[in-house]
Amino acid sequence: MNKFLSDKANSVIPYVQGEQPKDKKYIKLNTNESPYPPSKNVRKIITESDFDDLRLYPDADVSDLKNLIAKKYKLETENIFIGNGSDEILAFSFMAFFNKGDKIYYPNITYSFYSVYSDLFDLDEKKIPLKEDFSININDYKNLDSGIIIANPNAPTGMSLKLSEIEEIIKANLNKVVIIDEAYIDFGGESALKLINEYDNLLVVQTFSKSRSLAGMRLGFALGNKELIKGLKNIKFSFNSYTINRLSILAGIEAFKDEEYSKESVSKIINTREKTKEELKKLDFKVLNSKSNFLFISHKKVFAEDIYLQLKEKGILVRYFKQDIIKNFIRVTVGTDEEMIIFINALKEIVN
Amino acid sequence: MNKFLSDKANSVIPYVQGEQPKDKKYIKLNTNESPYPPSKNVRKIITESDFDDLRLYPDADVSDLKNLIAKKYKLETENIFIGNGSDEILAFSFMAFFNKGDKIYYPNITYSFYSVYSDLFDLDEKKIPLKEDFSININDYKNLDSGIIIANPNAPTGMSLKLSEIEEIIKANLNKVVIIDEAYIDFGGESALKLINEYDNLLVVQTFSKSRSLAGMRLGFALGNKELIKGLKNIKFSFNSYTINRLSILAGIEAFKDEEYSKESVSKIINTREKTKEELKKLDFKVLNSKSNFLFISHKKVFAEDIYLQLKEKGILVRYFKQDIIKNFIRVTVGTDEEMIIFINALKEIVN
Repeated sequence: MNKFLSDKANSVIPYVQGEQPKDKKYIKLNTNESPYPPSKNVRKIITESDFDDLRLYPDADVSDLKNLIAKKYKLETENIFIGNGSDEILAFSFMAFFNKGDKIYYPNITYSFYSVYSDLFDLDEKKIPLKEDFSININDYKNLDSGIIIANPNAPTGMSLKLSEIEEIIKANLNKVVIIDEAYIDFGGESALKLINEYDNLLVVQTFSKSRSLAGMRLGFALGNKELIKGLKNIKFSFNSYTINRLSILAGIEAFKDEEYSKESVSKIINTREKTKEELKKLDFKVLNSKSNFLFISHKKVFAEDIYLQLKEKGILVRYFKQDIIKNFIRVTVGTDEEMIIFINALKEIVN
Repeated sequence: MNKFLSDKANSVIPYVQGEQPKDKKYIKLNTNESPYPPSKNVRKIITESDFDDLRLYPDADVSDLKNLIAKKYKLETENIFIGNGSDEILAFSFMAFFNKGDKIYYPNITYSFYSVYSDLFDLDEKKIPLKEDFSININDYKNLDSGIIIANPNAPTGMSLKLSEIEEIIKANLNKVVIIDEAYIDFGGESALKLINEYDNLLVVQTFSKSRSLAGMRLGFALGNKELIKGLKNIKFSFNSYTINRLSILAGIEAFKDEEYSKESVSKIINTREKTKEELKKLDFKVLNSKSNFLFISHKKVFAEDIYLQLKEKGILVRYFKQDIIKNFIRVTVGTDEEMIIFINALKEIVN
């Protein structure tokens, strides 16, 4: 307790990101980054940009990027919100759609930042248990008395709901906001963004950090009914007018335009994921059915934390969550084929 | 009122930034940007950087830039916090040092974002009137029952307090946090950062947007006692782990290192400011004693809003605040000598 700090600053337990070690070179399979670089056009647009203009504030509305996204998805600019990573959008969403003390529903196993936001903004988190097989029972999400956030695919399981299931949830809560966090949607899920014009209670959140290989530039976007977007804007412009800088805007535009390239990266990642899955099964791993760029796995004999520690010893970082229910799992980002061969070989030494 | 939005998202009145028009080319003297480009080393480091690495998250701690700032000011890394512009740091400060319902003290005329934060976070703002001459009466800031934020130099007046006066305020409130917002300190004020090790209730906030010509890259920093910085970190890491992207970090490092260049820009701006001041006086303007990169001026005969509108007509943007007490003033950013000659000539047509 420090006397100068607010109760919240004294008590909140921040989100813990995956390790970003500086001491030595690891094969990094712990933070779900893309193993492939961003579109070459990102480099081109930035190196050719007018650096003198960096003296000027960026466009606070990020209109050029919003227009591009709107056009692509046949929406209007007023349906789009751009944030400093999807995390910033999630934080603003907790402020924009919930009052202090409100309930918010999400699965008991999901992106752990939701709990941190609930704490930070004094919401009453209601965690709905997953089924035994780690899937979401959509019947648990019907006619709820407050808003919902669902990661689809879910993290860290990687498992996804079908669009028809997502729609059932949205339909069964027409008076409550339903946030679908689609950070990993491009790796095999079906996006709910085609429902935006049909349901005014739906907010879809996506990111440039995964399929577009721009985690280092901090860009996310949300799509939703104009009123929801207006709510996000009211909060954002009361918090920090300019959260996206000039070079991020340029990078985002080029990465978004170069769809062919990101599709190619995604398809390589999916391919590697499926091959890795088969190898893992041969090694007696239980592997959840991932539609994301990571695999959530558990070994029948060797405890997950031991695997995590031994991999680290061998120069391979994966993510381990010391948390009930999933404490015998590790989350492994899908890297390049070469990285996954090294990973599988390391596992062979550990589990055999 | 939208049923999906929180009370706050429905009610808050966001901060209004200065216009950033896209329709035509203006001489922009309305958002206190530097008229000079950033250090050439910014361009160099970015164009030579490894763009493939943009696939990876940035260093959430921004350690390299923190270390640099700490070394320069003979502080420790734990005394430094880096934010996405000083606005983000201010927003986090309102969360880190104040509970809902707490009073917060600031001058009645100051950076208008403070009022927006007070509203957003449900603080009880206590505005202390400036003196007739727009100066701060430091005796009004002694033995207060809650925290204080003071912009030094103040905005939009540009007037500054002496370091000894700032210290008197800090000393007279040892049990309350005192935030000194030094966005414009490099243009003639005396920074309170040399008091950091003496007072554990002092937070100094600075920016890269003004003297370092990097408004487009969004970088600010705070200096304070380790416990205050820890409070800011607790909030930040519960909100958005990575608010500073890879290229902003690089830009910040180079801009901070190239002190000679930023000092040169600052000295040109001060020189232009003083010349402009003399010209304005000749035109019968009242000109407050600015220690910033802008001038706050009022004409004896022509109403400020008219001047603002007529200047805009002539392709020159300045800032007008439709607000009691200062409604007969305009705020004019100090541009290049050439820009200020055009500005003065335009004024001659308007006021003569």
